[in-house]
Parts: sequence; C-alpha cells; structure tokens
Amino acid sequence: MKKVAIIMGSDSDLPVVQKAADALKEYGVPFEMRVMSAHRCPAKVAEYSRLAEENGIGVIIAAAGMAAHLAGAIAANTTLPVIGIPIKSTLEGMDALLATVQMPSGIPVATVGINNAKNAAILAVQMLSLSDSELSEKLKSKRAEMTEEVNAKDEKLQNAPF
Amino acid sequence: MKKVAIIMGSDSDLPVVQKAADALKEYGVPFEMRVMSAHRCPAKVAEYSRLAEENGIGVIIAAAGMAAHLAGAIAANTTLPVIGIPIKSTLEGMDALLATVQMPSGIPVATVGINNAKNAAILAVQMLSLSDSELSEKLKSKRAEMTEEVNAKDEKLQNAPF
Amino acid sequence: MKKVAIIMGSDSDLPVVQKAADALKEYGVPFEMRVMSAHRCPAKVAEYSRLAEENGIGVIIAAAGMAAHLAGAIAANTTLPVIGIPIKSTLEGMDALLATVQMPSGIPVATVGINNAKNAAILAVQMLSLSDSELSEKLKSKRAEMTEEVNAKDEKLQNAPF
Amino acid sequence: MKKVAIIMGSDSDLPVVQKAADALKEYGVPFEMRVMSAHRCPAKVAEYSRLAEENGIGVIIAAAGMAAHLAGAIAANTTLPVIGIPIKSTLEGMDALLATVQMPSGIPVATVGINNAKNAAILAVQMLSLSDSELSEKLKSKRAEMTEEVNAKDEKLQNAPF
Amino acid sequence: MKKVAIIMGSDSDLPVVQKAADALKEYGVPFEMRVMSAHRCPAKVAEYSRLAEENGIGVIIAAAGMAAHLAGAIAANTTLPVIGIPIKSTLEGMDALLATVQMPSGIPVATVGINNAKNAAILAVQMLSLSDSELSEKLKSKRAEMTEEVNAKDEKLQNAPF
Amino acid sequence: MKKVAIIMGSDSDLPVVQKAADALKEYGVPFEMRVMSAHRCPAKVAEYSRLAEENGIGVIIAAAGMAAHLAGAIAANTTLPVIGIPIKSTLEGMDALLATVQMPSGIPVATVGINNAKNAAILAVQMLSLSDSELSEKLKSKRAEMTEEVNAKDEKLQNAPF
Amino acid sequence: MKKVAIIMGSDSDLPVVQKAADALKEYGVPFEMRVMSAHRCPAKVAEYSRLAEENGIGVIIAAAGMAAHLAGAIAANTTLPVIGIPIKSTLEGMDALLATVQMPSGIPVATVGINNAKNAAILAVQMLSLSDSELSEKLKSKRAEMTEEVNAKDEKLQNAPF
Amino acid sequence: MKKVAIIMGSDSDLPVVQKAADALKEYGVPFEMRVMSAHRCPAKVAEYSRLAEENGIGVIIAAAGMAAHLAGAIAANTTLPVIGIPIKSTLEGMDALLATVQMPSGIPVATVGINNAKNAAILAVQMLSLSDSELSEKLKSKRAEMTEEVNAKDEKLQNAPF
Repeated sequence: MKKVAIIMGSDSDLPVVQKAADALKEYGVPFEMRVMSAHRCPAKVAEYSRLAEENGIGVIIAAAGMAAHLAGAIAANTTLPVIGIPIKSTLEGMDALLATVQMPSGIPVATVGINNAKNAAILAVQMLSLSDSELSEKLKSKRAEMTEEVNAKDEKLQNAPF
Repeated sequence: MKKVAIIMGSDSDLPVVQKAADALKEYGVPFEMRVMSAHRCPAKVAEYSRLAEENGIGVIIAAAGMAAHLAGAIAANTTLPVIGIPIKSTLEGMDALLATVQMPSGIPVATVGINNAKNAAILAVQMLSLSDSELSEKLKSKRAEMTEEVNAKDEKLQNAPF
Repeated sequence: MKKVAIIMGSDSDLPVVQKAADALKEYGVPFEMRVMSAHRCPAKVAEYSRLAEENGIGVIIAAAGMAAHLAGAIAANTTLPVIGIPIKSTLEGMDALLATVQMPSGIPVATVGINNAKNAAILAVQMLSLSDSELSEKLKSKRAEMTEEVNAKDEKLQNAPF
Repeated sequence: MKKVAIIMGSDSDLPVVQKAADALKEYGVPFEMRVMSAHRCPAKVAEYSRLAEENGIGVIIAAAGMAAHLAGAIAANTTLPVIGIPIKSTLEGMDALLATVQMPSGIPVATVGINNAKNAAILAVQMLSLSDSELSEKLKSKRAEMTEEVNAKDEKLQNAPF
Repeated sequence: MKKVAIIMGSDSDLPVVQKAADALKEYGVPFEMRVMSAHRCPAKVAEYSRLAEENGIGVIIAAAGMAAHLAGAIAANTTLPVIGIPIKSTLEGMDALLATVQMPSGIPVATVGINNAKNAAILAVQMLSLSDSELSEKLKSKRAEMTEEVNAKDEKLQNAPF
Repeated sequence: MKKVAIIMGSDSDLPVVQKAADALKEYGVPFEMRVMSAHRCPAKVAEYSRLAEENGIGVIIAAAGMAAHLAGAIAANTTLPVIGIPIKSTLEGMDALLATVQMPSGIPVATVGINNAKNAAILAVQMLSLSDSELSEKLKSKRAEMTEEVNAKDEKLQNAPF
Repeated sequence: MKKVAIIMGSDSDLPVVQKAADALKEYGVPFEMRVMSAHRCPAKVAEYSRLAEENGIGVIIAAAGMAAHLAGAIAANTTLPVIGIPIKSTLEGMDALLATVQMPSGIPVATVGINNAKNAAILAVQMLSLSDSELSEKLKSKRAEMTEEVNAKDEKLQNAPF
Repeated sequence: MKKVAIIMGSDSDLPVVQKAADALKEYGVPFEMRVMSAHRCPAKVAEYSRLAEENGIGVIIAAAGMAAHLAGAIAANTTLPVIGIPIKSTLEGMDALLATVQMPSGIPVATVGINNAKNAAILAVQMLSLSDSELSEKLKSKRAEMTEEVNAKDEKLQNAPF
C-alpha cells in the first residue's frame, strides 16, 4: 500500500498533527512523519516532494501556521494529492487558512479545517480507498461507528433530567 | 475508470463550475454534472451521495455559495472523497469558504480556493491517478506545460522594453 | 401546546444550549432535547425533521459550531420555523454564524447571536405566543421584570460612591 | 389573519425589501410596508412597535443597513417576534449583520441572511402557519415546487452538451 | 458647568467604564453614571436622552457591547454630542465597534476605540473645554504630563542594560 | 464663532469630504478646508495642529484612507477635539476605520462611520453648540426636518400600490 | 550599483507591478523584471534566488496574489532583503497580505501595502541608499518634491470656492 | 557600522521587542532602544527621525499596537528604511497590522508579521549587509544553522515512536 507522508512546518505543531498519525494507525495505513519547513529548508522540501511518488508515497499531508506555505510548496513539486492543515497560531488561524487554500490555478491543495488533523488523515484514507476496497470498507464501518456514538449520546441525553 | 461527479447548488454557479468540466475533459476523465441543492432537494442529495460509489463515481466535486452546505451534506452520506468549491456570491466568498472547510471531525471536505473550479478538477484527477499511472503521467506532462507557459511569459517580459 | 425541539450537533454544546432549556422551563413550554449531527447522522436528522410537525413539534432550535449546517439541514426537511444558534468553537464563532445565517433563498433559518441560547428559546416562545395569549402575557410580564432588574441596577449605581 | 409589518430604515432599501412583499403576496398573507428609521424617528418606531400587537400585527420584519439598529429597536418595544434583514451598503453588509444578530440576552431578533428579504417573508409565514393549517399546507406545496424547479434544472443540465 | 452623563448598557460593563469616571474626576468635571439598556428599557433611554439637555447634561458617553445600539439610541433622541465606547464581549469587540460607529447620515456617534473609556472621558472634556478656558488649560497640562511620563520611560530604557 | 477645520490627507478625498463642507454651510458655521498629509508633510500638519486653537479653530475634522494616521497625528498636537473620517479606498475602508479609531489611551479621535463626512460636520456643530444656543436650536430644527422627511417617505410608501 | 529584481507571480500582475519599474527608473536604479511562479516553476524561483546575490542583485521585490507564497519562497533561498507586494485579486487582497507578511521567525519579508508597487520600489531604493549617498540625496529631494506637490494642492484648495 | 534604532510606542511592548535587541546582539550590530509615542510625544518622534541619519542610524525599527502610527510617523520624517512591527493588543493585532502596512504611496514601511520582532531585526541586518560582506556571511551562516536545527528535529521525529 502507498504510504501517507505527514509533514509539519515546525515540531511545535506536533500536538495538533499527532491526531493525523493516530487516525492513520486506526486505519492501518502506513505513514511517515517529518519536520520540514518551506522557509527554513526549502531545498529539502522540494527534493522530498519531487521524490515522494517514487519513494512510495501516495498522499502528502502538510501542516503549517501563519503564512502557511508548506502545503503549497510541496504541491508545487509533485502531482500527488496534497492535503493542507492550517495550524492556528495567530489571527485565530485565518492567516494559515487563507495561505493554504487560496492556491493559484493549476496547483490545488486539498484544505481541511483549522487544526483539523484527523480530517486530513481521513481524507488521505478516502483517497487511497479509491483503489483499495478493504480500506473502503473500513471507512464505512468507522463511519457507522461514529453514527452510533452520536446515537448513544442522543439516547443518554433523552433520558437525562433537565 | 471511475467517474467524477460535479454537483452545483444552483445553475447560476455554472459559469464558474464549467471550468471543472473543461479541465476533466482535458484529462479525459469521465464526469457527470448535476444541479442539486442541499436545502431545496436534500433527499435527492442524500440518495445520490449514498449511491454514488455503486454508480461508479469515484470523486464528488460540490460547488455552493453563501452558507455552503452542499459539499458537507454530500460528505455526510458517502465515504468517497468530496471536494468543495466555495462560490463567491456574498461577503467576497468568505461565508462559503468557512461553511465548506470548517467541517467537524470525522467528515472531511477537501476544500479548494474560492471559485477555483479548475483546481477542484485537478485535485480529483490527482486522487484518481493514485491507481492510474496513465493519468499520473498526464498530470506530470500538463504540469510541465504549465511551467513552460510561465517560462515563455518570463522570456517575453525579459525582452520587453520598460 | 406544541413542543419545542432543541437539537445540538454535539453533546459538547450542552453547557451553552442548557440555557435554552432553562428559559423554556421558565415559560412552561414543553420541549425535548436531542443530540443529532448533520454530518454524523444525516439520515436521522432528515427523518426527525420530516416527522417533527406530526410529532407535535412547533419550533425547532438547532445549535452547532464551525461549518454549522445543522439548522440548515433541518430547515431543508421541514417548513416549521427553525432557529439557529451559532456555537463558538473556532474563529470566535464567525464561521458558525455565517454557516447558519447565510441560507439560500427559500429556506430561512432564524438566527440568533453567537452562543445566545436563551434568545433562541425566547424567540421560540414568541412564535408560539402568536396563537397563545397566555404565553403572550408571560412574555410581557417577563419583559417587564427584565426592565425592573435593569432599573434596580441603575438605582444601585446612582447611589454608589465613585 | 394577523398582518405582517415590513419596516425599512430608509426608502433606498425598497428594491431589496420589495421581495419580502412579493413573497407575502404569493402566500396571501396581509402586510403593511413602512419607512421608519430607528435613528431619525425613534419615537414613531417605539410607538409603532408598542401598538403593533393591538393593531393586528403578528410578525414584524425590519430591514436596515450599516449600524442596523432598527430590528433591535422594534424588538425592544414589543414581544412579537421580530425578523431582521441586514441590508448591504457598506463593509459587504457585515456591519448590518452583526448589528442585527448580536442582540443582548432577553431581546432576540430572528436574523436572516444579508439582503435576504424573501427568506424574511417565508420565516414570517412559517411563524403564522403554526396556528394556520392552510398556510402550513401552502408552505409545503411551495417547498415542493421549489424542489421541482431545481429538479427541472438538474434534468436540463444532464441533457446539456459539455 | 455642564455635566457629563456616562451610560452603560449593563452593569457588567462597569469595570471598563469606571475609567471614564476616574478621568472625569481628574479633570474636575461633574458627571453622573447610569445603567440603562437600549433594549431592556428603551423608553427610559429615550426619555433620559430627550431631557438630558434641560437637565444640565452637556455630553453623553454611552458604553455597550455586541449589537451595541445604546449610543445610537441616545443620539437619536438628543442633539447633544454622544460619545460611544464599543465594549468587547464577543468577536473581539468588532461587533460593538461597527454597531456604534456606522451610524446613518444625520445622527453621528463620536466613537472611540474598543473598551477605551478613558479616551471617551477626555473627548468629553475636550468638547466642554471649547467654552471653558480653565478646562482647556488642564487638558494641556495633563497632555504635557503624559509626554513627560513617556520621556521618563524613554530615559529609563536608555539607561537599562540589554 | 470658532471655525471648523476640515483637513483631508489627499485631494482625491474631496468628493467625499465636500459633504462636510456642505453641512457646515447649512448650519452657518465658518470653516476652512485644507489638504495636508500626515506622511507627506508631517511638519506642516504638526504646526497647523499646534497653532489651530490660537488661530480660532474650535474643532478639527480629518479625513484619510488606508493606514489613516491624519486624525491621530493632528490629535497628538492639539487638545482641541478631533473628528476622524475613515475614507474607503482599500479593504472596504476597514483599514482606515481601525487606524482612525483605535487610538492609544490619552489621545482620543472622535471617529464617525466610513466616508460619513456629513456626520463629521454635524458632530462638529454639536460640539460647538454646547456654548451656542442658536446653533443648538438649528440642530433641533434640522433634526425635526429630517424626521419629517422620513415621515413623508413613509406616507408615500403607505399609499403606494404593491 | 546593485540591481533590483522585480519578480511577479503572473504576467497578469504587470499593470500593478509596472509602477515599481517606473519608480526605479526615476531613481536611476538598474533593475530586471521577471515572471516566475512559486507554484508553477518552483525550481526556477529557488535557483534564481540562490544565485541572485552573485548575479549582482541587491534587493528582490516579489509581487503575488491569493495564497501569495512568492516573496516567502524567494526569501527562503537568499539572505538578500526581499520586499513583498500583496496583489489584490480575491478577498480584497487580505489573503495575499497575510500570506506575504506573516512569515515564520528567521525569514522576514518586508511587506508593503496591498498593490503598493511604488512603495516597494522606494523601499528598495532606501535600502540601497544606505551605502550610496547620491541615492540618499535623490530620496530626500523626491520627498521634498512630494511635500511640495501636496502643498500646491493645499494652496489650490484654499483658494477654491466652496 | 551604522546603528539600528529600535523604537517602541510604549514600554509595555518591551517583552515583545526585546527579541529584536537579542537578534541584533547575535549579529553584533550596534543598536539603541527607545520609548517614543507617535501620539504622546510627536515632536520628539519627528525630531528623532529627522536627525536619525546624521546621528549614525541606518535603519529604524518601530513597534506599536492598535492604531499603530509610530512606524509611519517616523517614515514621514526620514528617508532611511523604516521597519514596522505590528504589536498585538486588540483585535488579534489586525488593527496594528493594517495601520502599519497600508501606507500611502511614497512613504513605505517595511512591515513584518504581528509581534515578529526577531524578523524585524534580521531584516535590518539584511539591509545593512548590502554593503557589509562580513554581515552578509553571518546571515548565511545563521541561515545554515537554522536549517540544521530543523533537520535535527526532523531526524529526531523520524526516530520517535508513534
């Protein structure tokens, strides 16, 4: 199976990004996790991105804050799908969101919500599941579990006294 | 090959969304284009989404403006990857962007830039190319063409008198 | 008397939403409180909304955060009046406000202020009071009490030393 | 049947607000339309609001732009449900939206989207229909028509060449 | 000397508004401080504003948060200068700022910065000083003191080791 | 009578600022109108502001766009009341609004709405009227006229067919 | 003398960026103008930036819109000062501003106002003038001219009839 | 070597601004640090700025919050390059950012990110290094160190268990 790469712009993003790793483990999807800054080690980011496909990577998740260029810098160097997680550190994360999502025509970044690392992982799994029916089944059963959890909370609330 | 579905919330979105269709044609990816509103025909949206996978759809692109719920409503009913295009109609498109990208944990929408229908299509192609090496090659050659176009403009500008 | 339904997208919204329940109790208006997510259990939300009227519901209050689709998803499935409470969890609640209020033509959501669950309840009571003169009187007497409370604070402040 | 009052802060708002009148006519709901400014004729606004109920008004729709106080000023003087339409004139309508929706605890304004006069009217009809089953049926049949219109556009698009 | 009225929409605003009272005391300007809500006691606000001039008030300072209508509601009922203090409680105070400053043509509110009660008081003093040369001199000497304070901090910093 | 100074940061602001001059003429208040940039001729702005009082100026109105420092730069050099008009040229005028209103403690700028030059003039008249009962009467009669104008529009609308 | 490089992300930015070229010509500062996209030709941008210093470039001006990464991508590959011009194309240019200015610690971009290409050029001249007294004198004389122009407009306005 | 001046609008900004001083010390660049408010001591700011060049200053860094005029007020009085640091105190620092960066044509301020004092210092060093090859080398070696630090974190993360 192709691997997912999880790249963060700074190791201070790890507490947020960890949830992407956790989710991928739940789905049994192999991944690697790296710290690479679009601005502090641009050559490494470019080379990593150019070689990602031949190194067995299928999807790249990139997490960065502020003028968050990381996902875009990766997407500029590969045609693999790149998922961007805007990290909240200033301006409630609005700067990171806009710097991640407003990509120019031709170079998309699949952007998820601010700090929403889990959704980045699930999106990566959804992409990989397009040619992996086992993964596709796992997605469906996890979704059903999620529905059940909300149902259980609903039941509990209905029986609570107010 | 799996099809891409392009769903728009209103036929007034067609001029923007057309660029997604154009791009998919360039890549030779089969697609269908539909008008379905999350609010005006919710049952149809739900059913379409639930059946999308068995109807041969691989990726769903959803375009909507204002309180843009369409991509999220689709994502809630399928585990296929869903790409959201926020359509600008009010508030410079900021309402549509936030209503598309800020999805709850567990139900991602791969959001592209405001009105950026072409990027939605390319992202869909990138997803499909994960298991289609021919499509993957096309992406690379289109990317190279794009680079060449910018290079040509650069050359032209360098020779222009200022 | 018709019941008010209070639906929240997640049980983590309960501390905010509880104030709606408290206010309804003050007015003696029957209500039920449920947890249902537009994205995690869309079919249940749709069915609940479609059956609400025949189940004796008169007004539905829906509280959700981020890309807050819950009120809109309910409004799409009923012609009962739907009141939306944008819950603050990210971006100061601006995402939830826009995702709740900017509904497309034809499907209104009566939106109250961010986290303002009490106002959602009072608005529901005002709607029900259109055909219930006793409720209408209660609204007037509560309003008068509220005015008295501010007057008392004004008096107290006027007598305070500065 | 109770009347709906449509109040606008300035006659320059008429082109937007007209759509509320049109919608009410479609539903056969009696209404009156007035120009009254919260800031230029506050006493009249207060008196009109205080007497609205005994004058046969059931719901008040108020449309205003900028520091849009009109809906709030009306709501402060009646316990009838008040619907606010934020009118876009500056700052993309964001000032009017916030000045309309962010009401203090105890005095709700049922806010609809920026310039969305039609939704204000439909919301008023929904409120009145709580005790008027004929109106309730009309809402359902209009909703069904709306769904049919989108379906027709969907059909047309499916048969269009791309 | 004419009095300054300091009106706050809620007694929870007192900690912020107290600084206006403190500043007025420093300048020896008589004032009264009141709690009156534009929405919870509109008739009182209107009457107070209409009678303010004949009651010896020269300038009215109004502090309110959220959909901050208080300053506007007062300005609608008097031609005395009204100073608005937007109080921060939600959305970083942006809602209160816009609801205070974006007044319609004809009814100005002299708006100061978010939570900046001290500046509201100084502005009131500046207005009164137009016909009070003693007050005018006090303003100049306080200004000179303020300059001296910054100069002293500058001196201290220059001598600090870094 | 003290004069009002109307200062604009650029002569391109004249079409907006002209309305302040028009309003002052209506009230018979003497004024002078100047172009002075806080950034392009700071010494002149400072000197003008320092000498304003002894030159017979009572109130200074300053209009500027973008990083609108003009009102603040004037206020820093005088203790006369300074009224700021944020001029819309970029970012919908939000930059000019914030740069005008968010003054530091001790140096207020009485800010009116974006491009609202007429309100700046009326506010200046209100300040001057504190010691000029004739002007005070004019303000009241103009206010009454304004109310009448809205009443006339209201009457006309009530008689219009819809 | 060291050259200034003016890089734009797309040739559609030329009408805005031309003003930087015009200003540099006024100051007699040599420059080159290029089209290079951070996302469409990242390798070229990186190489150009790495070689800029040895190719006689002293300052690099970079203009880009939306998720404007260009200035940051250049700054990541050189220690020459990099000036960023946020180009307005969507969201009033707010996306480009934030994506340009909010750089991570260690890699500054000297950001000028939205679309303010002339200021970028003047800033570049100011940097070069630190070791070029002739250029420094030109800056002073141009500044004096600018002051004179505003003075002339002021004179003209003072003599205009209102 | 020319000195860098670090000016802050208030000594409360010192904890943020200290990082600029620290960075300059690392590069061995002489500097002076001052407290001067554009609004509380405008004459001093103007004089300091006018004399800065002849007093051996090469670059001026100015830090201020809210309606942050300090950098602009300095830039208005010198043709030395001026670097602005928007300080976050209200509105997440957005007011300070816009008041610093949106300067009028002709008077640039080189703006860095909100609270990003370190980047202001590095930018100053980059400017000075244009005519100081030793400083230029230091910049390159510090940049290389920074890259190494990120590489070390990357290595550590790769070897961490997840």
